[in-house]
Amino acid sequence: MTYCVGIKLDDGLVFASDSRTSAGVDYISVFNKTHQFSIPNEREIFILSAGNLGTTQEVIALLRREIERGIEHNILKLDSIFDIAIKLGATLQEVVAKIPPKAGVDFTSSFILGGKIKGEPIRLFKIYPEGNFIEATPETPFFQIGESKYGKPILDRIISSDLSVDYAINCTLVSFDSTMKSNLSVGLPINLSVLRESDSVDSVVNHPQQRVIDEEDSSFIELRKKWNILMQQSFSQLAESKWFNV
Amino acid sequence: MTYCVGIKLDDGLVFASDSRTSAGVDYISVFNKTHQFSIPNEREIFILSAGNLGTTQEVIALLRREIERGIEHNILKLDSIFDIAIKLGATLQEVVAKIPPKAGVDFTSSFILGGKIKGEPIRLFKIYPEGNFIEATPETPFFQIGESKYGKPILDRIISSDLSVDYAINCTLVSFDSTMKSNLSVGLPINLSVLRESDSVDSVVNHPQQRVIDEEDSSFIELRKKWNILMQQSFSQLAESKWFNV
Repeated sequence: MTYCVGIKLDDGLVFASDSRTSAGVDYISVFNKTHQFSIPNEREIFILSAGNLGTTQEVIALLRREIERGIEHNILKLDSIFDIAIKLGATLQEVVAKIPPKAGVDFTSSFILGGKIKGEPIRLFKIYPEGNFIEATPETPFFQIGESKYGKPILDRIISSDLSVDYAINCTLVSFDSTMKSNLSVGLPINLSVLRESDSVDSVVNHPQQRVIDEEDSSFIELRKKWNILMQQSFSQLAESKWFNV
Repeated sequence: MTYCVGIKLDDGLVFASDSRTSAGVDYISVFNKTHQFSIPNEREIFILSAGNLGTTQEVIALLRREIERGIEHNILKLDSIFDIAIKLGATLQEVVAKIPPKAGVDFTSSFILGGKIKGEPIRLFKIYPEGNFIEATPETPFFQIGESKYGKPILDRIISSDLSVDYAINCTLVSFDSTMKSNLSVGLPINLSVLRESDSVDSVVNHPQQRVIDEEDSSFIELRKKWNILMQQSFSQLAESKWFNV
């Protein structure tokens, strides 16, 4: 499986993806699921992928080939992130349509797409396996794809668009920690990317920041340890309740 | 959907089930999913159910009918909770086998079974949709059935068999709170049951304690509120981390 999160804050976009791909427990590989497309200072695009690895690789490869061949409507030339969402959805439909259906095998994928094109604000979309999509709003500031249930409650509780980038990253990494504790098919390293919204009127596209978080990342080790202690402490503070009169 | 939890502590068994049954968002009903079978001072048996409502109701009704008819191997006469697990699994297989398969519809159910028979220690089992089952151990002291992923991380982090009953109930109710926040198909009231292990050598079967937790349960309202504050506070304490040098 896979776990990916994308968050749209007032201050910028946060993306995180795990790196484990499995076709059974004895065939586990490491794949980066964060795909970046960039024209420095003009546009920064992030696509996170979950689902069938063949399908996601072909979708991403088709988008890259169009860029290499200089096709007119490639994603580095389209006018808006919204247009890129349409293109990504259509490419996904095209790839899936070619595969003969097989009972019990799911060849679909889903994507989180986010980024900024000069003059536009940052935008964030979730592309469903059917190729349709939704956009993040202040009321729904985050999207998850893949093995998303374990890590959803903590995001539901904490994430809102007015949080700082570092605060939202803490929450995202706790959500990954919870998922990895409960499900072996999601694993390190985590690819973390941040694209900060620009304050200036001319809407500059900032350079994105990226960090790979692996087993030896001391800040992440510290965060996991600290969170576990905070959870234990929180429960100790609840422990006065008496649910029955013995 | 449904969410049920069963925990085997050194001090006793804790069971909790929600009450929402849905066949689509416009057909939601309230059903108690905790089924109790009892001979006071001799045996106390709890069966929690998740899955197809027709199947679970038929399984429980068949077990009850055997008791009413005084059939020899009914679950109030069997020698051990282990034998009851075998009977429950076989009854489930029998009921499912009668239903003609229909593509896209799942007629199966799963169960948590726990209890105590005089002379035996408390025992806890999980019965799979196929009718086979596993027993709780000190390393795996809890089982979940139904919509279990949202509430699993908090149980994974906190539950161990040496916890007190009240502490484990707090954790269980936080797990339900997280699930209900993230998924509308799980809803109040929660049926909470506790069967305390006896300290005495002759292994008395204690009277179980039960409590229905609804929207107006002030202790539960208090717990939810307090937990939410503790989560916010915990995140504030993490918030010093800097993930990027801006």
